[in-house]
Amino acid sequence: MSNKVLVFGHKNPDTDSITSSIVMANLENQLGNEAQAVRTGKINKETEYVFQYLGIEKPELIEDVEDGQEVILVDHNEATQCVNNIANAHIQKVVDHHTMNFVAPYQLYYRAEPVGCTATVLYKMYRENDVEINKTIATLMLSAIISDTLLFKSPTCTPEDQKVAEKLAKIADVNVEEYGKNLLKAGTDISEFTPAEVINIDSKLFEKDGKKFKIAQINTADLDDVFKKQSYFEAAINDEIKQENLDLYVFAATDILNSNSKVISLGNQANVIEKAYGQPLDHNTALLEGVVSRKKQILPKILENLD
Amino acid sequence: MSNKVLVFGHKNPDTDSITSSIVMANLENQLGNEAQAVRTGKINKETEYVFQYLGIEKPELIEDVEDGQEVILVDHNEATQCVNNIANAHIQKVVDHHTMNFVAPYQLYYRAEPVGCTATVLYKMYRENDVEINKTIATLMLSAIISDTLLFKSPTCTPEDQKVAEKLAKIADVNVEEYGKNLLKAGTDISEFTPAEVINIDSKLFEKDGKKFKIAQINTADLDDVFKKQSYFEAAINDEIKQENLDLYVFAATDILNSNSKVISLGNQANVIEKAYGQPLDHNTALLEGVVSRKKQILPKILENLD
Repeated sequence: MSNKVLVFGHKNPDTDSITSSIVMANLENQLGNEAQAVRTGKINKETEYVFQYLGIEKPELIEDVEDGQEVILVDHNEATQCVNNIANAHIQKVVDHHTMNFVAPYQLYYRAEPVGCTATVLYKMYRENDVEINKTIATLMLSAIISDTLLFKSPTCTPEDQKVAEKLAKIADVNVEEYGKNLLKAGTDISEFTPAEVINIDSKLFEKDGKKFKIAQINTADLDDVFKKQSYFEAAINDEIKQENLDLYVFAATDILNSNSKVISLGNQANVIEKAYGQPLDHNTALLEGVVSRKKQILPKILENLD
Repeated sequence: MSNKVLVFGHKNPDTDSITSSIVMANLENQLGNEAQAVRTGKINKETEYVFQYLGIEKPELIEDVEDGQEVILVDHNEATQCVNNIANAHIQKVVDHHTMNFVAPYQLYYRAEPVGCTATVLYKMYRENDVEINKTIATLMLSAIISDTLLFKSPTCTPEDQKVAEKLAKIADVNVEEYGKNLLKAGTDISEFTPAEVINIDSKLFEKDGKKFKIAQINTADLDDVFKKQSYFEAAINDEIKQENLDLYVFAATDILNSNSKVISLGNQANVIEKAYGQPLDHNTALLEGVVSRKKQILPKILENLD
């Protein structure tokens, strides 16, 4: 067990989960609480771009936490998306920006805000505590905001995210448009992944009324290129449905240039897509115009329309 | 339905719930969010002392909220302790200092800290937003901290509560010891209440694994005087157990001078007190030495030891 408090994001970490772990650990250390950022899964290509740009090391990978471990959660609050054995750890703090499903039989620091990115909340916490934001920390936060808001184009983006991003860009000394496009483009490279890996680049597990479902999302600049491998993705998805006893698996490829998503929907609840968007599935797929946000445009519609 | 966002605390409101509603509504108004403090229950004698001292009006009483009403919760997060129909309202924010059991299918502002009083969190929010704390607001916050920490003697009191109280005392221009003793003493006056009212001055409903139980607490400077009416309290408690189908009702009278609590424990789980504290019940009562905090010293022990 680590003597330091371990800071980490959700499983299948995206850029916000990884960078916010580092940023939060830095804030805690500056405030005198010994903390270490760790990660709960493989780093994606987009996040890798950030590490290469900054020339810094990735956080250590952990598979689970030991009983009694002190931890801080960033960018998630639901146990289903958290590291194994979280129920036996002690959660000191949560900093997040998602919907809530959280139980703790003890008091803790919980900070969530209805913004597009955990980094936006962390920026305010640095300011409130008068802790300096250096160039590296600013670049990490800026990368998270660009990633979560698809360069401010997602409906999840709030005026506050944009304002904070502008301030961070000055400290980070980067051209947001140029850096942002390179960052998002880096994340669309799936050439080195197996189909099973692609569907898990950024997948999240949800539960409602005993029904278990996953929504996976990848970004792409070329939908046709992604869907050349549709049959391979379907095989991988069906495997996972079987192994994890899922009722539904929605895999969304989001076109970051045209702001649409094409989804594959499988499982006994696959028709939820038709109910939610009025579009019948065509060979298990549907093109959802204007849909880019899992949180705002996919998850709520699925929750509403599950049988 | 009110166009303003309604700010309120838990049912059977204590001083922190009432004053924090007013303080939070004031903060929101200063920040441009039209807000109104309301209360969800009768004001207790202690809180009445604060209103008389300041010469200000009580917030309006509400019984429930209408569908779609915008609300802010202070000093609680669990639906069981909240106003009727909360499930159909829209919770904009929560500011709290309790354990958590909270679900929201949408993003919101959630701020909880492991301190002794909601007012301590609110004080920081004023500071972070550069909003001035006037004498009335300072007195309201100070009263809440004194009440929740029993003038800093409760194990729920943190160094942060004490530090904030000192700062507030300067703005409020009061002698904390003198004002605090008068405030707490005002809260011990139960002469005008029926037994059924006394057990509901500050009672909270909890649930665990389908078991429902209430823990009620009053402050007193004279335990013997309170227990002269034991048989009347027991009748009122047994009525409530029947009507609300409770498994347990623990009524704690807390001696604020000697920092002990004498409890009455009734219901099919009444023996939880013996299991939790190693003290057999004597005529349904037990004297719990050093126990003054429901949150830290009663609730967790009961949760652990329920059958």
